[in-house]
Amino acid sequence: MSITYLDNAASSWPKPPGVKEAMIEVLDQYAANPGRGGHTLAIKASRVLFQTRVQLSRLFGVDNPNNLFFYPNATIALNQAIKGYVKSGDHIITSSIEHNSVRRPLEYLHKTLGVTITYVQPREDQLFYLEDFEKEITPSTRLLVVSHASNLTGVILPIAELGQLAKQHQITFLVDASQSAGVLPIDVSQMNIDMLAFPGHKGLYGPQGTGGLYVTDSIDLEPLIHGGTGSQSEAIDQPTTRPDRYESGTANTVGVAGLGVGVSFVLEKGISHIHQHEWQLAKQALERLQTIEGVEVYGPAPTVERVGVVAFNIAGADASEVSFILDKEYQIATRAGYHCTPLGHETSGTQDKGAVRASFGIYNDENDLNQLIMAVQEISEAFRLG
Amino acid sequence: MSITYLDNAASSWPKPPGVKEAMIEVLDQYAANPGRGGHTLAIKASRVLFQTRVQLSRLFGVDNPNNLFFYPNATIALNQAIKGYVKSGDHIITSSIEHNSVRRPLEYLHKTLGVTITYVQPREDQLFYLEDFEKEITPSTRLLVVSHASNLTGVILPIAELGQLAKQHQITFLVDASQSAGVLPIDVSQMNIDMLAFPGHKGLYGPQGTGGLYVTDSIDLEPLIHGGTGSQSEAIDQPTTRPDRYESGTANTVGVAGLGVGVSFVLEKGISHIHQHEWQLAKQALERLQTIEGVEVYGPAPTVERVGVVAFNIAGADASEVSFILDKEYQIATRAGYHCTPLGHETSGTQDKGAVRASFGIYNDENDLNQLIMAVQEISEAFRLG
Repeated sequence: MSITYLDNAASSWPKPPGVKEAMIEVLDQYAANPGRGGHTLAIKASRVLFQTRVQLSRLFGVDNPNNLFFYPNATIALNQAIKGYVKSGDHIITSSIEHNSVRRPLEYLHKTLGVTITYVQPREDQLFYLEDFEKEITPSTRLLVVSHASNLTGVILPIAELGQLAKQHQITFLVDASQSAGVLPIDVSQMNIDMLAFPGHKGLYGPQGTGGLYVTDSIDLEPLIHGGTGSQSEAIDQPTTRPDRYESGTANTVGVAGLGVGVSFVLEKGISHIHQHEWQLAKQALERLQTIEGVEVYGPAPTVERVGVVAFNIAGADASEVSFILDKEYQIATRAGYHCTPLGHETSGTQDKGAVRASFGIYNDENDLNQLIMAVQEISEAFRLG
Repeated sequence: MSITYLDNAASSWPKPPGVKEAMIEVLDQYAANPGRGGHTLAIKASRVLFQTRVQLSRLFGVDNPNNLFFYPNATIALNQAIKGYVKSGDHIITSSIEHNSVRRPLEYLHKTLGVTITYVQPREDQLFYLEDFEKEITPSTRLLVVSHASNLTGVILPIAELGQLAKQHQITFLVDASQSAGVLPIDVSQMNIDMLAFPGHKGLYGPQGTGGLYVTDSIDLEPLIHGGTGSQSEAIDQPTTRPDRYESGTANTVGVAGLGVGVSFVLEKGISHIHQHEWQLAKQALERLQTIEGVEVYGPAPTVERVGVVAFNIAGADASEVSFILDKEYQIATRAGYHCTPLGHETSGTQDKGAVRASFGIYNDENDLNQLIMAVQEISEAFRLG
């Protein structure tokens, strides 16, 4: 029996045609170390990295591809951005829906450096307003860091406006695009984004083990990782040239080759087409789920545009039990729990029970949606009848 | 024309049968997030990680597979080990042949925390002696960190004896197995190794983007990366359970699946067989290269057993020029330069010019060796005749 995969917010699956083939080509033909030798195979490997940097630059409006650094996931990219930038005495503004990959580094710096953190909450309509961020700014505010979209409810934050605000107040602006890269328009120069962290294996349709960080020219981060770079080997310090300064150690050339094809697929399909496809499925899911007796959905009203992520619970049932039944009885892959976003759960009022999350990708269709709705109807009925 | 690949110390190539197939299986069938959902595909992904942990544990004599953490390369593993352990006031003993992935983190901690570092040199015979490490121990020595084998000359350090020494003096012992994992016997309990960093893409024959770190139970490192772990999501701090505490962010399941096959290949072939195969080629290379007029080889006498790495220069020629000619005219992939090990070059007296490195893997044979020797003969003759 085939699987209905609704866990695209964790990792997109399946991958577009060509991703696998690009990876196989590198593995078979030239899995040498890029930048670690002048021979033909190493140069070929180097070219794969550069080509993917160029594709990502097109997607994100980046002028200089060498300002994009590869990391194995968005988590390490966010750690590099946050820990490489924040200094003792800083005040940081963030949102209440952040993933643990933002919250835990911040709280670590709070404990070790004594930095202060303000978590901005959404209003009653579950939306975020510019003024609520603006009023928290103090003379010591040095960083504004927000998720572009929530990994729990899919709610979208107004990053263009926040970028404008940060620029006005000369605050560095870091965006976590874990749920938006490849789905929502991002232009780092137009939106005044100073740093952008993104995963490769979600909306960019690359394999796991890929991701990256964009850092504008004027910010000199302290490297998180020190080591060999293949350049300026004789120096005791990290080289100053980008991307080398921030890419110590052997790159995942095989994975980045796959990511390059994923990004090309996104550029070809078009961000707007992908987003509309996913959002229409999510919107219908929200509308239909909330009509089922005993089912509660979270986040703003279903009419408010979000990314393709839907969170819900069934009255009387534990979220993980529901997700387990969806998997075992209906072959529908969802995810239950806290989704690494405890503050998001406080925001949604689900901190005691978590939630079931269904997340749509470009390869989902109406049939997948119908499967989910039918299954939730049956499960909620079973729990009601007892 | 086929390529003679002699850059296995950077990345082994080709990979054994099954590595690619295991990666394709994950990509095609279940590239979901391990530990990030209870659904069938996520559990399958989780199992791949665990199975590879078990194989690695067999190889390195590790009791508890959960004490092995996956990283994208040995560099990040070494950064986690060193920066997570070293404290202000510590004295660290290391060797003069360390790669920049050890030296640069240490020098960074020297600059920022004021730790002191002693670089132990080899004697005139280019070998390292236990007494030379022992005499550097002071009451504040907290860490001994050495490469198991040099990435420049292939010289092997006496890690079993050094482990014994560290144990006697209650000093933590960290081994960089970048050039030895899969090639030389390593048993962390027998050899008193507290931490072991290793790449997946060299002697373990996995793809790039893989590697790891073993940390004994009694050492509690400060995590280098904070973020989502899929467990204890509601906690503000990193979870304390292993491996979760040290593996924030989405794992490279695809790569680790390939690594698992690579490690099985090594276990099947046998460390001793692999090492003898590579060493015999390297030994012959050393013996034959040094008979060529104008060619200088580095490291101990060719009779002293090493890993399959050979460094040389041709009189009157720049190392990178020689490597370039080997690639373009003879389709032989070697590497020229400083190999991220400036201290190693000082040790070898090649700090001003670097060296050409040829490194052998399990798939090289006598024919590859003959190609190299013949090419070096021709090139050195051309430079002699000028």
